[in-house]
Amino acid sequence: MRVATQDFFVEKNNYASDGGFEPAIAASGEEAVTLLKGGLTKYRALVTDINLRGTMGGWEVAKVAREIDPEFPIIYMTGASADQYASHGVPNSILLTKPFAPAQLVTAVSQLLNSGTPTT
Amino acid sequence: MRVATQDFFVEKNNYASDGGFEPAIAASGEEAVTLLKGGLTKYRALVTDINLRGTMGGWEVAKVAREIDPEFPIIYMTGASADQYASHGVPNSILLTKPFAPAQLVTAVSQLLNSGTPTT
Amino acid sequence: MRVATQDFFVEKNNYASDGGFEPAIAASGEEAVTLLKGGLTKYRALVTDINLRGTMGGWEVAKVAREIDPEFPIIYMTGASADQYASHGVPNSILLTKPFAPAQLVTAVSQLLNSGTPTT
Amino acid sequence: MRVATQDFFVEKNNYASDGGFEPAIAASGEEAVTLLKGGLTKYRALVTDINLRGTMGGWEVAKVAREIDPEFPIIYMTGASADQYASHGVPNSILLTKPFAPAQLVTAVSQLLNSGTPTT
Amino acid sequence: MRVATQDFFVEKNNYASDGGFEPAIAASGEEAVTLLKGGLTKYRALVTDINLRGTMGGWEVAKVAREIDPEFPIIYMTGASADQYASHGVPNSILLTKPFAPAQLVTAVSQLLNSGTPTT
Amino acid sequence: MRVATQDFFVEKNNYASDGGFEPAIAASGEEAVTLLKGGLTKYRALVTDINLRGTMGGWEVAKVAREIDPEFPIIYMTGASADQYASHGVPNSILLTKPFAPAQLVTAVSQLLNSGTPTT
Repeated sequence: MRVATQDFFVEKNNYASDGGFEPAIAASGEEAVTLLKGGLTKYRALVTDINLRGTMGGWEVAKVAREIDPEFPIIYMTGASADQYASHGVPNSILLTKPFAPAQLVTAVSQLLNSGTPTT
Repeated sequence: MRVATQDFFVEKNNYASDGGFEPAIAASGEEAVTLLKGGLTKYRALVTDINLRGTMGGWEVAKVAREIDPEFPIIYMTGASADQYASHGVPNSILLTKPFAPAQLVTAVSQLLNSGTPTT
Repeated sequence: MRVATQDFFVEKNNYASDGGFEPAIAASGEEAVTLLKGGLTKYRALVTDINLRGTMGGWEVAKVAREIDPEFPIIYMTGASADQYASHGVPNSILLTKPFAPAQLVTAVSQLLNSGTPTT
Repeated sequence: MRVATQDFFVEKNNYASDGGFEPAIAASGEEAVTLLKGGLTKYRALVTDINLRGTMGGWEVAKVAREIDPEFPIIYMTGASADQYASHGVPNSILLTKPFAPAQLVTAVSQLLNSGTPTT
Repeated sequence: MRVATQDFFVEKNNYASDGGFEPAIAASGEEAVTLLKGGLTKYRALVTDINLRGTMGGWEVAKVAREIDPEFPIIYMTGASADQYASHGVPNSILLTKPFAPAQLVTAVSQLLNSGTPTT
Repeated sequence: MRVATQDFFVEKNNYASDGGFEPAIAASGEEAVTLLKGGLTKYRALVTDINLRGTMGGWEVAKVAREIDPEFPIIYMTGASADQYASHGVPNSILLTKPFAPAQLVTAVSQLLNSGTPTT
């Protein structure tokens, strides 16, 4: 499931609260889009699975978010659809391939939210 | 216009031959896709405009190339559609905003064709 | 407040001890500079707010640190002054915009302390 | 000398016209600032020496440019002042250490003008 | 000590389990190589010290891993041998200089396991 | 053949003089090492083929250069040995796979010689 969150979107398991992030959850891609269109500035990032309930998948939800805010942080999570990232993903995004450790999600969200020019 | 090239796709003006690249030209997005599907290994990169003759635009041609080869170098050129890059572009690509100097295209193609981990 | 730390400088709340870092605290920009000049090798990074007690602000404390050691890791934290980063920040640094999660600070310090050439 | 240019600022020698860039020249830091304040959108990048005629040096001219436009591309050129870059430079900039080849300037300007997320 | 792990190789202390990673341990470089050759797909990354029991050091173990899988994530940990990284390390790797905080290891593993093109 | 150069090492054909670089040539890996050990500061970068006359190959010449100067820019050129880069290359280097255009070499050398933190 995808989630609209005060800080980011998380999947079913609450990985990201480890890092101090505050998730909000949406039950489908369509619901996530409704939340995003309702006010993107309440949210800090989108973390989305690819295969979602309903007809809208994760690749599309991310595009909607980016049409609203071209700089919105996007993190994809998938097991089966990773090979589609190179053709369906958006620039300046991160892909987590399942299974992944909670720390990977925390690091990914942090990288996208931090600004600057580190050389590592 | 988009081009299928021995080395890369170039727009109408032959910028990239400056750098020693050897372009081949397609007259429309559909023709570019035909060339790509005919044998991607003959080509080294895709350089495409966004607004193309025919019904297929540059964002779609790039996705077709990436479905064939997820690592195919992609460079977009546009004036009016640059704001769509964040939602319609693919990861690990470069966008050149018109007007741009020939050197920018040469550098972009070189960056995508070179391998390694430079810190600049 | 800025802090001179065994491992890094942290703000009032002890975020970074989560990651195993050991902070030391300075009460003003001037005090931080005194600590830095007293022996930069005791410290691993500077984490600084922009608005500080006293007359010296965070942008200046960072410059002093870099004059002593050009490679000293610098992380800025700010809410109101983020728009000044592009003109007042130093290269190879990270900016955290408040509010931010503890994980963002831990990731930022780690990125700057780690060496190498990861492509993510 | 610093230069306000249609495409970029170049030093005395006209390196950058090799790449198809169109330079305009300023005789001092103060003149460069006047040109920048007169209309930054006419210019694509700032290429500046550090030691300039007049009282304003290159580090300061770059800051003025970034105060007007936080994303303005900045390239510094210096022989003697390279060690000050880590404390006086701005983020997301490039430093060329003299002597350097014309190609380095062309590549630097191109890198900063191109958008996207190449992994090289 | 080096470790072959379900998720990664860790040193004596179990830092990385903090982030949800599951380590397996090898007692020497030769044992680590045996585990790697037995089936690299069981493992997600190599985290290795440089000075190991036996005759094979960390630089060599990493090369063996990369000969099996050119994309295998590599993280080196060292105190005394850090200066050899530039000549003995492999591309797209991370070096942690001792002493380092557990968070640095977690961030390093996460960066190498995540895919994509973040600009931070 | 590899070359010790005032500015960089080039292969048989004089690609890099296009960009204003001044090459010097060595006839074998051993000769290149002799030149490097004679005074690395005269040279700006190493550009080397992998298969060389004599017994020393390009991977080894690069390691020798890095043992003298850990920051020495390294560019490899190869057709047949590209798959060895991930295990035999050094960090912060660039690999050019033959055939490549002269512009790729010029861009690679420029990237490694330029300093800074561009986000492209």
